[in-house]
Amino acid sequence: MEVYLDNSATTRSFDEVAALMTQIMCEDYGNPSSLHRKGVQAEQYIRYAKDVIARNLKVNEKEIFFTSGGTEADNLAIRGCAYANCRSGRHLITTQIEHPAVLQTMRHLEEEGFRVTYLPVDGKGCVRLEELERAVTGETILVSIMHTNNEVGTLQPVEKAGALIKAMNPRILFHVDAVQGYGKFRIHPKKMKIDLLSASGHKIHGPKGSGFLYADEKVKIRPVMFGGGQQNGLRSGTENVPAIAGLAKAVEMVYGNLDEEVKKMYSLKKAFVEGVRKIDNVVVNGHPDEEGAPHVVSVSIKGVRSEVLLHALEDKEIYVSAGSACAARKPQPSDTLKAMGISGELLGSTIRFSFSVFTTMEEINYTLQTMYDIIPMLRKYTRR
Amino acid sequence: MEVYLDNSATTRSFDEVAALMTQIMCEDYGNPSSLHRKGVQAEQYIRYAKDVIARNLKVNEKEIFFTSGGTEADNLAIRGCAYANCRSGRHLITTQIEHPAVLQTMRHLEEEGFRVTYLPVDGKGCVRLEELERAVTGETILVSIMHTNNEVGTLQPVEKAGALIKAMNPRILFHVDAVQGYGKFRIHPKKMKIDLLSASGHKIHGPKGSGFLYADEKVKIRPVMFGGGQQNGLRSGTENVPAIAGLAKAVEMVYGNLDEEVKKMYSLKKAFVEGVRKIDNVVVNGHPDEEGAPHVVSVSIKGVRSEVLLHALEDKEIYVSAGSACAARKPQPSDTLKAMGISGELLGSTIRFSFSVFTTMEEINYTLQTMYDIIPMLRKYTRR
Repeated sequence: MEVYLDNSATTRSFDEVAALMTQIMCEDYGNPSSLHRKGVQAEQYIRYAKDVIARNLKVNEKEIFFTSGGTEADNLAIRGCAYANCRSGRHLITTQIEHPAVLQTMRHLEEEGFRVTYLPVDGKGCVRLEELERAVTGETILVSIMHTNNEVGTLQPVEKAGALIKAMNPRILFHVDAVQGYGKFRIHPKKMKIDLLSASGHKIHGPKGSGFLYADEKVKIRPVMFGGGQQNGLRSGTENVPAIAGLAKAVEMVYGNLDEEVKKMYSLKKAFVEGVRKIDNVVVNGHPDEEGAPHVVSVSIKGVRSEVLLHALEDKEIYVSAGSACAARKPQPSDTLKAMGISGELLGSTIRFSFSVFTTMEEINYTLQTMYDIIPMLRKYTRR
Repeated sequence: MEVYLDNSATTRSFDEVAALMTQIMCEDYGNPSSLHRKGVQAEQYIRYAKDVIARNLKVNEKEIFFTSGGTEADNLAIRGCAYANCRSGRHLITTQIEHPAVLQTMRHLEEEGFRVTYLPVDGKGCVRLEELERAVTGETILVSIMHTNNEVGTLQPVEKAGALIKAMNPRILFHVDAVQGYGKFRIHPKKMKIDLLSASGHKIHGPKGSGFLYADEKVKIRPVMFGGGQQNGLRSGTENVPAIAGLAKAVEMVYGNLDEEVKKMYSLKKAFVEGVRKIDNVVVNGHPDEEGAPHVVSVSIKGVRSEVLLHALEDKEIYVSAGSACAARKPQPSDTLKAMGISGELLGSTIRFSFSVFTTMEEINYTLQTMYDIIPMLRKYTRR
């Protein structure tokens, strides 16, 4: 049995997404900038996609900009706003547990003379609002806090953070990297005081190379890619119509059955956490219950190195992650786990299991049984 | 009969490209950064694609970087090199007839304190090498000249320009936007002294949202997108594996039969140019023969406005372009045609016909016959 439990790294596309993309690539293949019927038809796919996503977020269609993925959306949000608003101040705030698309963008801005505060997190991986409150200065122009952590599935207090920020200074922009949360939660930026929100297609059974940035129409933002002036000048380059349409199709499918699927994922999570706790000397990181995301379980298994367990599970066709896949195979211990205060010994012994709508209870049971079989053996071999 | 003659705007994907992408999206959907088998499998698609393109260009695999398209490749090449090499000088050279992805990027760099020379062109749309020679200063760090013009199909003297630049100062970088030339010509950067070359997938029957930058390994270049450090740190973001594989498939297919297809396109071009010249008061812009690209014919038709003819042809299911589609429906007259010295009256009466491997002689004949039928009528109505 092949068991894919690395859905926070990427997901299998829905068949319907691939079928729609094939149709657009081979039949409705026009360039949306073309003035003839095939161009207009292509533009209609984009409009439809904007409409789907805008309704899903309860925002205006004009506020949706398609990107090549979550990384570009994060870059556009953070750098685009930093450059456009640097006259109001040069201070940004984020957390220590963001995705590299946010963290590395912040580091780049530091090189360009911005000042960045990286908020610490508690043992569960949650930002403390008092720390946020303390970090805000008269120079602060943007706060970026992720919705759902990609390594441990911790949910950040995004709505409270939005309220706090706007109460302190309504001009401070609030960006949320929702790459892991979008498709699992209903997120309504206007209600949550979110000015900018990034999401990715390939985490929700949509195409790789797709994503979007929601940007409130009042937000001043400068492009980070220059060219033909597509997407109202904010994101030049021929629109990736098949991927945009595929992304919208995935959004429709995921949100069409959200409550039921999320409930199912939580029951998988519950069963998995209960099962994994039957193994000695195991720590489940973050929130093991419905306080955390439905699809991510991070487990530290004392005395077994992550890579060793990963490959032992791989031998049984179970695919998981050591940390997150997003950091391009870097072998260093996870910054997120370190920020959560996970001890050195457990840092290198942590595995992420991440589920999707395709995950079944049978797969969970097979995974648990396999772990029961191999972990005692692996511990024996690694004992010194 | 549907006749798509807007292939310089975008092309229909090969069925084989869409089929391969579907397989990768729904079966081999791993994240190349994942350590398990599905990640390794995904990475193999990328390696294979790099190998295909590197062999095609006769360069090293390490020198190929995948982007979200031609616009991103141009941005990365020009801004990436400008930022990385600004200590050697802050002067760049390009031409007046580049694609907006180059021109707007240059304008942005001007705002950031770089100086840019925009070389004029002759009546055919060709850069003069004497002008290039005169423009080079001790401060020049990069020259960017397109391979094939997107509006009139003029081929630039890229190889001679490369030799000239390197003879003057081997440290000046030479970038070539080959979005319109790649897939029509064999381009070997090392031989042609090209340090950086941009190409796009959707112009050669590959996927939208795909493209690559070739960058000689000796070139210093700074990323323009920050994140997980994929692609050797130069282009962060989960690799768009289906699009990368689809791009390589298109390259294999297009170059597998290049000589025959190009010969066929030149014969279509010849027939079309001969046919169109039977209409009174018509000017074929650029090179009407094999001195120009095989797939682009720009025609100015006195007394008929571009949009009017475009829509009249559309009524007969013939899809063409008024200028280029890449400038996102901006209604201004084309900068390229202006730089070529096309008179004001003809500027607004210019139509681009662009062919592909799918274009047939039957379609050309149908298009000509339709033009013979409707142009006299349109001229009658627009006569004052």
